[in-house]
Amino acid sequence: MASRGMPGLMPGQLRGLMMDRPLLVAPLLQFAAEFHGDTEIVTRSIEGPIHRTDYAATWRRTQALANALIAMGIKPGDRVATVAWNTWRHMELYYAVAGIGAVCHTINPRLSVEQMRYIVDDAADGAIFFDTTFAASMAELAGTVPSVRHFVALADATCTATLDPAIGAQSYEDLLAAAKDSYTFPEFDENAAASLCYTSGTTGHPKGVLYSHRALVLHSFGLVANFWLNPEEISLPVVPMFHVNAWGIPYAAPMGGTALVMPGRALDGKSLFELMDAENVTCAQGVPTVWMGLLDAMRKAGRKPSALKRVIVGGAALSEAMIHAFEDEFGVSAIHAWGMTEMTPLGVINQTKRKFANLPPAERLKFKLKQGHVVAGVDMRITAADGAVLPNDGKSAGHLQVRGPWIAERYYKSETTATTPDGWFDTGDIATLDPDGFMHITDRAKDIIKSGGEWISSVDLENAAMGHPQIAHAAVIGIAHPRWQERPLLVCVCRGQDNPTLAEMHAYLATKVPKWWLPDAVEFIEALPLGATGKIQKSLLREHFKDYVLPDETSV
Amino acid sequence: MASRGMPGLMPGQLRGLMMDRPLLVAPLLQFAAEFHGDTEIVTRSIEGPIHRTDYAATWRRTQALANALIAMGIKPGDRVATVAWNTWRHMELYYAVAGIGAVCHTINPRLSVEQMRYIVDDAADGAIFFDTTFAASMAELAGTVPSVRHFVALADATCTATLDPAIGAQSYEDLLAAAKDSYTFPEFDENAAASLCYTSGTTGHPKGVLYSHRALVLHSFGLVANFWLNPEEISLPVVPMFHVNAWGIPYAAPMGGTALVMPGRALDGKSLFELMDAENVTCAQGVPTVWMGLLDAMRKAGRKPSALKRVIVGGAALSEAMIHAFEDEFGVSAIHAWGMTEMTPLGVINQTKRKFANLPPAERLKFKLKQGHVVAGVDMRITAADGAVLPNDGKSAGHLQVRGPWIAERYYKSETTATTPDGWFDTGDIATLDPDGFMHITDRAKDIIKSGGEWISSVDLENAAMGHPQIAHAAVIGIAHPRWQERPLLVCVCRGQDNPTLAEMHAYLATKVPKWWLPDAVEFIEALPLGATGKIQKSLLREHFKDYVLPDETSV
Repeated sequence: MASRGMPGLMPGQLRGLMMDRPLLVAPLLQFAAEFHGDTEIVTRSIEGPIHRTDYAATWRRTQALANALIAMGIKPGDRVATVAWNTWRHMELYYAVAGIGAVCHTINPRLSVEQMRYIVDDAADGAIFFDTTFAASMAELAGTVPSVRHFVALADATCTATLDPAIGAQSYEDLLAAAKDSYTFPEFDENAAASLCYTSGTTGHPKGVLYSHRALVLHSFGLVANFWLNPEEISLPVVPMFHVNAWGIPYAAPMGGTALVMPGRALDGKSLFELMDAENVTCAQGVPTVWMGLLDAMRKAGRKPSALKRVIVGGAALSEAMIHAFEDEFGVSAIHAWGMTEMTPLGVINQTKRKFANLPPAERLKFKLKQGHVVAGVDMRITAADGAVLPNDGKSAGHLQVRGPWIAERYYKSETTATTPDGWFDTGDIATLDPDGFMHITDRAKDIIKSGGEWISSVDLENAAMGHPQIAHAAVIGIAHPRWQERPLLVCVCRGQDNPTLAEMHAYLATKVPKWWLPDAVEFIEALPLGATGKIQKSLLREHFKDYVLPDETSV
Repeated sequence: MASRGMPGLMPGQLRGLMMDRPLLVAPLLQFAAEFHGDTEIVTRSIEGPIHRTDYAATWRRTQALANALIAMGIKPGDRVATVAWNTWRHMELYYAVAGIGAVCHTINPRLSVEQMRYIVDDAADGAIFFDTTFAASMAELAGTVPSVRHFVALADATCTATLDPAIGAQSYEDLLAAAKDSYTFPEFDENAAASLCYTSGTTGHPKGVLYSHRALVLHSFGLVANFWLNPEEISLPVVPMFHVNAWGIPYAAPMGGTALVMPGRALDGKSLFELMDAENVTCAQGVPTVWMGLLDAMRKAGRKPSALKRVIVGGAALSEAMIHAFEDEFGVSAIHAWGMTEMTPLGVINQTKRKFANLPPAERLKFKLKQGHVVAGVDMRITAADGAVLPNDGKSAGHLQVRGPWIAERYYKSETTATTPDGWFDTGDIATLDPDGFMHITDRAKDIIKSGGEWISSVDLENAAMGHPQIAHAAVIGIAHPRWQERPLLVCVCRGQDNPTLAEMHAYLATKVPKWWLPDAVEFIEALPLGATGKIQKSLLREHFKDYVLPDETSV
């Protein structure tokens, strides 16, 4: 199916008389270099020590990298892969690769070598830039990925020399040292591809999302407005640069004149606490798992990192317990956000409204627990199974669909669009939208439990269960039931040795969920299966429990 | 000269695979209606009483207006003029006219009827929507502007009936009442024209700036990020909607979910104070003249309007005295911003940086007195007379030039671009840019005083003079001088009867400006000549003093 294409002028309509300036990625960094030149990018380097640079120096090195890439034979349209942590070098790659008209393909290093090989082959990457942490994977890949003409270690010559010779790696620092640090980035169509990120779906092969310069720049405007990215902030993206471009922060921070602190590979709570504390980080972004580690470190220290004002929580739902921990124990705002790889990723963020100021805390909390408010630039709707648009009443749950200039229209190399016939992207989530514009995900469409013609949200049930003091993690899956079609099974990881009984769980949950949601059974396991991006792999749980027989007597 | 046009893809380059969604104006209001539906637009109506509506209701009336416009025969590309204050009705016109693909042409009601006639003829407006305040001008225009097929009074039938029948005015409220309030706005090329605003230059005929939908939407993203337009704020644009679209706030506020309070025609300090106080306005935008009136009202009341946090000051330089008055007397932030009609208008805003927090107050003040920091989306440079780009060192003063997607490429109906050969717009200002990205205007290029091969900034000299307790207003112009080419004449309006002597002014200014800047003479007049937008008309001063003879002995 052909792309929908941009609409033209209507007959008689006038063209505005503003400058034809394309929205491109490289000028974002150039802007920061010119007008926020001494604003820092501080990294806990892979080599160990703290590395300090700023936007002016990063811009010069980005120009040197552009020259080096061209000397390596990288041409417009070529894909250049990165297998790397959040560092200043990874940022240079973002800008230099996209800046010369090539495509920066960020690969998740947590994938198996086999999965990486599939992705490298699919993208036909011409070069791979990797952090030395991943040398073992590179040694396995080398010689088996015919498109890759260069392996470049993000390290100096001394460090590169210690790597397995089978990789045939060049030193990144050597490449840069040999290149001139002045380069004029070309101007081209803002719809040109700038970066590529594969989504690891739970089924089938991963699919590539090919971001345009236009999408990344427009998204950056949205991020600056909604993520407090301004010259008074110091931001630490824990969310990896191999995952949806670290939510776009490496593009938006230069636009906002915001200082960056990059955690490298040390993502444990203690390391994050120390880095945030030493570098006066005011704002950090990441998934709940990371924040659990940070909260542990904060409790051990008995305080928050000195300057921390807020954490933005995405990738999975922000729980009530985590909000209380950050806000009540430590005075740090915990703010829900939601998006997808296919959305660049920002869709909603839990910014408060003036009218909420007068609400009692419990009412305000209801809003805070939703994923957040729709961000300007994203069209959002919920639809019934037949495609009918449902009202934004905060009650009607339906398929969450989005549309906008930073939403994917199709996947890389796909002949068909990924959208509905009327041009919306179906997120695969079930959600409500309220009249104030707050979206609440009740479940993944494939995870929702269909019981007697009604829906039970596995997510809400899991969150409720995780409030129990003995439950560390919980997942809920549907088990086939002769009478009700499906009924919920609660699968838990316990904090200690004392597994609560089903009756105890029912008693605990009774005030929190409708009575007919109460799980028919509870099972305890050692750990929940997690995917490469830290999400629970419910498909594996379903496989594990596929022959599970529910007790005869249901709770309904 | 042809438009430069957008660059295409380079050979081999890939097109990104994101949705082709045009950036259009109408969806900004639709977004607010859907997700900030009960956020208010409160107006001190032209009829007198306070009028309250919200984004949801405004969106419905905008759809009715679209149907009404089409029924009137307004077609895509047609120009529809407004001669109106800041009100909810004017906002409906912004969105409905642009939404159907026509062009909303805002006319400055302070122009003479003759000037209005020139502009209406030049734009060939098909209709004029006017506030009843301007009925006298409309009666003079009616019958003399052949393109205008409809005069519509922004009023109900009763009020419209009281107007001079020569106008032949229809009632706006009648038009809306007769129209269906559902309309699907078309999608079209984002480069289509959405609004038109004439700049009243100090010489020659006014020239039209034809804003595209793309420019207005991109500018709105910039404004939301830089003007604190978010759902926690209540914003009062004093800057008129007939002047560069009230700095773009009526487009950006819905995007930011910000409540609006519209002052109508009551722009005096007392009225503004009462409205801000009653409506919990947190942020207001306008020119220094307006803030002087507000400060008087605040001093009389002995307090600030209850919720006021900041005022954004543009259109003319923000003085040190005004900063002290707002910040030290009343605890309200006074923030400098700068732009031009040709820039939609935002170019710089005086947002602080983290590094300034440790500066002593006097050093921080130096930054606050500059026009502000370059906004992302605007390229800015200063050049020498020969076009060479000067360094951003905070010292080199040169011609201030800008470039970007919301900067005008040419004027309406012009066959030639308004840019330099390399595609920049010359603002006509002389400025410095410092390494932190702060721009400081030292003068208008045509106002700078060229003395002995050096430049004397008339603006800096005026600001220094206005610090004198007896000086209410001041203007400095260059007077021909046989030896130095030009020397400064200080023209003042005094607060009382006691005019300071030249010697007294020299003594006062000696510590504030270089010795060779000291004016050669001082003259006192009753009032400075002001143009339609409140700016001092130095061309008239120069005309008045064209035969002025400086005293023999210069101060140099």
